[in-house]
Amino acid sequence: MSRKPTLAVVGATGAVGTVMLDILSTREDVYGEIRLIASPRSAGKKLTVRGEEVVVQALAPEVFDGVDIAMFDVPDEVSAVWAPIAAERGAVAVDNSGAFRMDPDVPLVVPEVNPDAAKARPKGIISNPNCTTLSMIVALGALHRQWGLAELVVASYQAASGAGQEGIDTLYSQIEKIAGNRELGQRAGDVRAVVGTEGPFPAPLALNVVPWAGSLKDGGWSSEELKVRNESRKILGLPGLKVSATCVRVPVITTHSLAVHAVFGSEVDQREAQAVLAAAPGVVLSDNPEAYEFPTPNDVVGTDPTWVGRVRRSLDDPKALDLFLCGDNLRKGAALNTAQIAELVATEFTS
Amino acid sequence: MSRKPTLAVVGATGAVGTVMLDILSTREDVYGEIRLIASPRSAGKKLTVRGEEVVVQALAPEVFDGVDIAMFDVPDEVSAVWAPIAAERGAVAVDNSGAFRMDPDVPLVVPEVNPDAAKARPKGIISNPNCTTLSMIVALGALHRQWGLAELVVASYQAASGAGQEGIDTLYSQIEKIAGNRELGQRAGDVRAVVGTEGPFPAPLALNVVPWAGSLKDGGWSSEELKVRNESRKILGLPGLKVSATCVRVPVITTHSLAVHAVFGSEVDQREAQAVLAAAPGVVLSDNPEAYEFPTPNDVVGTDPTWVGRVRRSLDDPKALDLFLCGDNLRKGAALNTAQIAELVATEFTS
Repeated sequence: MSRKPTLAVVGATGAVGTVMLDILSTREDVYGEIRLIASPRSAGKKLTVRGEEVVVQALAPEVFDGVDIAMFDVPDEVSAVWAPIAAERGAVAVDNSGAFRMDPDVPLVVPEVNPDAAKARPKGIISNPNCTTLSMIVALGALHRQWGLAELVVASYQAASGAGQEGIDTLYSQIEKIAGNRELGQRAGDVRAVVGTEGPFPAPLALNVVPWAGSLKDGGWSSEELKVRNESRKILGLPGLKVSATCVRVPVITTHSLAVHAVFGSEVDQREAQAVLAAAPGVVLSDNPEAYEFPTPNDVVGTDPTWVGRVRRSLDDPKALDLFLCGDNLRKGAALNTAQIAELVATEFTS
Repeated sequence: MSRKPTLAVVGATGAVGTVMLDILSTREDVYGEIRLIASPRSAGKKLTVRGEEVVVQALAPEVFDGVDIAMFDVPDEVSAVWAPIAAERGAVAVDNSGAFRMDPDVPLVVPEVNPDAAKARPKGIISNPNCTTLSMIVALGALHRQWGLAELVVASYQAASGAGQEGIDTLYSQIEKIAGNRELGQRAGDVRAVVGTEGPFPAPLALNVVPWAGSLKDGGWSSEELKVRNESRKILGLPGLKVSATCVRVPVITTHSLAVHAVFGSEVDQREAQAVLAAAPGVVLSDNPEAYEFPTPNDVVGTDPTWVGRVRRSLDDPKALDLFLCGDNLRKGAALNTAQIAELVATEFTS
């Protein structure tokens, strides 16, 4: 019997949660009841979703009773505890934390790339990939279907909002401190001396780039760089994919960019690659450098697709393409992909 | 007979020229007379070098009479005409433009990498490489001597001053326009609507990154990306080196950064690579991510060396290293390397 599923949004008051409520309000009417859940200190707050005020409830096992799908956008350690509780109470948990992404019993899903993976979820949990991986994987999935991906070399240009609202506030604050001083940025450490080291970044971000995101892992790799490697492999179903990523934070508020060198199993062609990308769902090709048409983060922030430009066949390797991509890390990189996964699950109730 | 050579600095009033006068003032006393040359509209202006005021002379054939070494930092089309005139009058021309870099009869020199190339100069001209290539090539030269370089994949984070004083002024101006508005950077085109499109960049640079530098070449490549490929090959003496570069402008005043994936002819080792870099002249290793030690452009701007950090052996290729490098594009990337080449030539007079 067809019915509209009940949805719970856990972490409704956060940066990604806020974007999620916008997305739920503007898309077709998929759900019956929508419950908003947050930490006890946000309980009682009223938020608007689908034009109606909803009172935020405190996270507790009982809030999941009668819930069919529960989206989680909370820290890893909160998801680790509460996504299994939601699943135990009968909900399908769609989790945007890193807690379960590499769990072999939890699918890691990008609806344009591996929708069928969402069907097998022995723990009742589906994971949403990391925002940096999501900013490129839809475009790379389309190219992989064409030529078979063998290797990726990725350099990222990651936005401040990847570090949450604190990241956004820190960058705005640093820019306010340096604006109007036309000497800064010309002597070692002069920006650091003015903006200090407050906030989530290990070095000043205004008038600077910072080659670090996440925590330190073996071999000098950052956790963010390993996520790009491991999650790309899992989503594409290519456990042997060669991946080298260098993740760098740049002074952009929202939208991650990536320079990608992708090596395939067979010879590629620039025009054909452009045609594949232009036709791929969830991808927009913006690639006419003669007219200065290429994606930049400010030109695409707030939009849903992955934007791809600067498509070139490598001069020294007929099997390799070089690309520049932009994707909104709060939308496709987080809330939008979570919403898309939840809608995949919702079709099980309505069809 | 040993004597101190006479030096002419052509383009003494520009952004790189200004840094050059600083460098000439702080280094050991290499030259006899120093003549400062610029366009007719700057003639008569007084500039200070080595603590003394020098009157700027207008560019004319006669100013090169008696000159032993002439440094050029002027646009390509000016160098194309005037460097041969200086050479004809007996000077060795050291040219920082792109006019002669790929000329087979003009050596392209980085003193730490290929000093001997400066000796064979049939046209009396030596070229100084492009700033982006210079920001990485000293470090890569050291690693190449150890393991033999086979392939480079490069993504750049290039500073505004790579587009000259106009680039610097444009970025400062854009930051002044966006500072204090904590809504900007969150909706497509909102920064463009505030800062407009004045200046040398094809898209806003504040709160943005722009995947374009230079002019359009075949296959969608930018001239800047081809310079990285072609100049790296020439400097390293590796005409078959595989190179893919994506050049991106970032909102940094001065100092280019690069994420480099370098593949070698034999197996590499992270600790050994760090040791090679730490011992290399002109290179500083800054690589202890546990203590958040890695180079950032603001931490190294105004210094001479190439700074290298984030040294990692690729997880999926034992012959590949991933690195993050920073180099001041006005110093090593332009004035300093030109000064070093001129000093190589000067030793021919004094030894």
